[in-house]
Amino acid sequence: VNAEIVAVGSELLTPFRQDTNSLFLTDELNQLGVEVHFKDVVGDNREDLIRVARAALGRSEIVIFMGGLGPTEDDLTRECVAETLGVELRRDPEIIAALYKRFAARRIKMAENNSRQADVLPGATVLPNANGSAPGQWLETDYEGKARVIMLLPGPPHELKALFESQCVERLRAKLPPLFIAKRVLKVAMMPESECDARIAPIYTKYPQVQTTILASRAGEVQVHLQARAESTAEAQRQVDELATKLEDELDQRVFSSTGESLEQIVGYYLEMRGATLAVAESCTGGLLSQRITSVAGSSRYFLGGVVVYSNELKSSLADVPAQLIAEHGAVSREVALALADGIRRRCSATLGVGITGIAGPGGGTPEKPVGLVYVAVADGHNPEVVERRYPGDRERIRWWASQQALDMLRLKLI
Amino acid sequence: VNAEIVAVGSELLTPFRQDTNSLFLTDELNQLGVEVHFKDVVGDNREDLIRVARAALGRSEIVIFMGGLGPTEDDLTRECVAETLGVELRRDPEIIAALYKRFAARRIKMAENNSRQADVLPGATVLPNANGSAPGQWLETDYEGKARVIMLLPGPPHELKALFESQCVERLRAKLPPLFIAKRVLKVAMMPESECDARIAPIYTKYPQVQTTILASRAGEVQVHLQARAESTAEAQRQVDELATKLEDELDQRVFSSTGESLEQIVGYYLEMRGATLAVAESCTGGLLSQRITSVAGSSRYFLGGVVVYSNELKSSLADVPAQLIAEHGAVSREVALALADGIRRRCSATLGVGITGIAGPGGGTPEKPVGLVYVAVADGHNPEVVERRYPGDRERIRWWASQQALDMLRLKLI
Repeated sequence: VNAEIVAVGSELLTPFRQDTNSLFLTDELNQLGVEVHFKDVVGDNREDLIRVARAALGRSEIVIFMGGLGPTEDDLTRECVAETLGVELRRDPEIIAALYKRFAARRIKMAENNSRQADVLPGATVLPNANGSAPGQWLETDYEGKARVIMLLPGPPHELKALFESQCVERLRAKLPPLFIAKRVLKVAMMPESECDARIAPIYTKYPQVQTTILASRAGEVQVHLQARAESTAEAQRQVDELATKLEDELDQRVFSSTGESLEQIVGYYLEMRGATLAVAESCTGGLLSQRITSVAGSSRYFLGGVVVYSNELKSSLADVPAQLIAEHGAVSREVALALADGIRRRCSATLGVGITGIAGPGGGTPEKPVGLVYVAVADGHNPEVVERRYPGDRERIRWWASQQALDMLRLKLI
Repeated sequence: VNAEIVAVGSELLTPFRQDTNSLFLTDELNQLGVEVHFKDVVGDNREDLIRVARAALGRSEIVIFMGGLGPTEDDLTRECVAETLGVELRRDPEIIAALYKRFAARRIKMAENNSRQADVLPGATVLPNANGSAPGQWLETDYEGKARVIMLLPGPPHELKALFESQCVERLRAKLPPLFIAKRVLKVAMMPESECDARIAPIYTKYPQVQTTILASRAGEVQVHLQARAESTAEAQRQVDELATKLEDELDQRVFSSTGESLEQIVGYYLEMRGATLAVAESCTGGLLSQRITSVAGSSRYFLGGVVVYSNELKSSLADVPAQLIAEHGAVSREVALALADGIRRRCSATLGVGITGIAGPGGGTPEKPVGLVYVAVADGHNPEVVERRYPGDRERIRWWASQQALDMLRLKLI
């Protein structure tokens, strides 16, 4: 079954705004066994909208219009779809009543143009919108002799998502052949996409019934998406799990999550599980590592704190790095990274300490210590570890890679 | 003049990938006086692609196809456009030669399928691709009796951008009526979009020749985009500048930039200009403020460092907040925010210190100190300032608002 998604709104044809709803809808439709084969963006223009509606209804079994359902003169979706179908809108008294109620509850007088939101395609089911005033519509109809499902959905993402999930998914499922899908996402740290593919392709190509997609997510993270369709959920799940197990065996410790967690969350889980605490001393990452760790709710249970020490003086006064050591080896060195990690660990009485020092650029590089050179250390009081890396890219990317490296070293230390 | 942008590629019809090139192209086209009136996404499917090409060429004067120019069987853009136009592709010997050279330089044997990249529409100008193997094409032709400009561009963003800027902009400009455009963006901190609009609408509505667009960028930042077209660049600039000056007068100190800088950059400029230095002590923002400040290249000239102090012990040991003060007022209080700001300022011998303490949630809230409550303080050794705020939204949003508030207080302190 094929679907087409039409985003309506002149703001989506500017350099400033982009449709993102279609990614959500595509995911939902795929899970029902529906493929999206066209996406269109069209402005608030009667002629253009009717043109797109005609093309979409001509070629797609399911057509989802998003946006253009508001009260203003620019909101043309309802009337253009009606015109395309050759039908007249009818004004629904129940929606009018609901609108009046909505405005009265807020003690605002309802402007007359709001009643346009009560215009309904003949035969359509009204889909109440819990998060906004414009209701959606669901219509099963014929277009040029072919059966079509048409949905009109509000444009704001939180309205669209809630409405689609609560009122469209089950209606669609009831129309479609029964389908059982299982999914799994393996997240892989610090391995290039091409290497990951080279290692697992010999395995997943033996499982043609499982759809395997490899995606480079952010720098230092690759995701392997597995999806199977079968006659029962159990069978689909069995197929996905069988392949996932083989891929995990092959990728071994490079897989950090197979159930959706982020790297920050995984490090947090391990720390909590081990009753361990963490403190960090950052130079070139400038707080990015702390910020990532504390983006996880509840991180205060294992993250004690950290320091951002740009100057040499602060490396000594806040993380107890001996001034002598900096003078001997330079601030960007293996030795200083280790001293930062152990210094902050002791200073905060933490189980583990992380130290990062490097040159994020664009300035500050030298032939011996070029932009992109980073040292990352983890101290646990027994076996300190430190790695030297040369990261490519700009300041933002170098900083991200360094924080990713630190999280991955923590993960491996805690496994 | 109207343009249509067609993104080709089945990956753009999955939940994982999205066309972003069209935002760049729209911006470039708008500056030439061209409006985008349709955008389409279509998969690597012959029938679908021809369908979209027919519709686009039927209704749009400029049609830009992106993607589908590679060497594989899936790359169908060249042949589908040829079929739509009813012409035969010719294989260009110069491109073949260039491809052989490219592969030879890398000491790789060229696979036969690469020669598909040398297939050119009759009459088209080949647009060399400095960053990839697939060249672009520019064709001026007739379709159903109407003059059309067709561009075939490679899909990878860095290839497309470089190629479009270097080879399409001037070609397009030569085809279009002369047009002179001036632009200006005012960035406004910590003012709701609706309030901003209410204050400036009475002014910008008197300048109908300047196109004014108000955009809520991130939490705590609104952008006012001004654009004018006139018979000369000087006249367009004059119109934009005249309105910009009036809007800046009205919005006064809420405008932090009118020439593109970010809030982090502006704070950095002011600090450097005053020869001042900065240190920060963060609790609930967990390093986000440090990370934002240090995302600016050269920030080491004014940012000394900071601490992330989740635990009460570290608030005392790293930022010299008296334990007594925390016991009396609680860690989330006006007093502790001020003590953090002044403690870190003294500890780092900085000109200015920032302290942030609050409850980012989702846990940890109480009726007296609910989730979203944040205190932000700036200390300068003379007139410390502190504000109490209640931010809406989730953990990420609350943390962002708090960091935004701190940057804005620093900015106002330094003006």
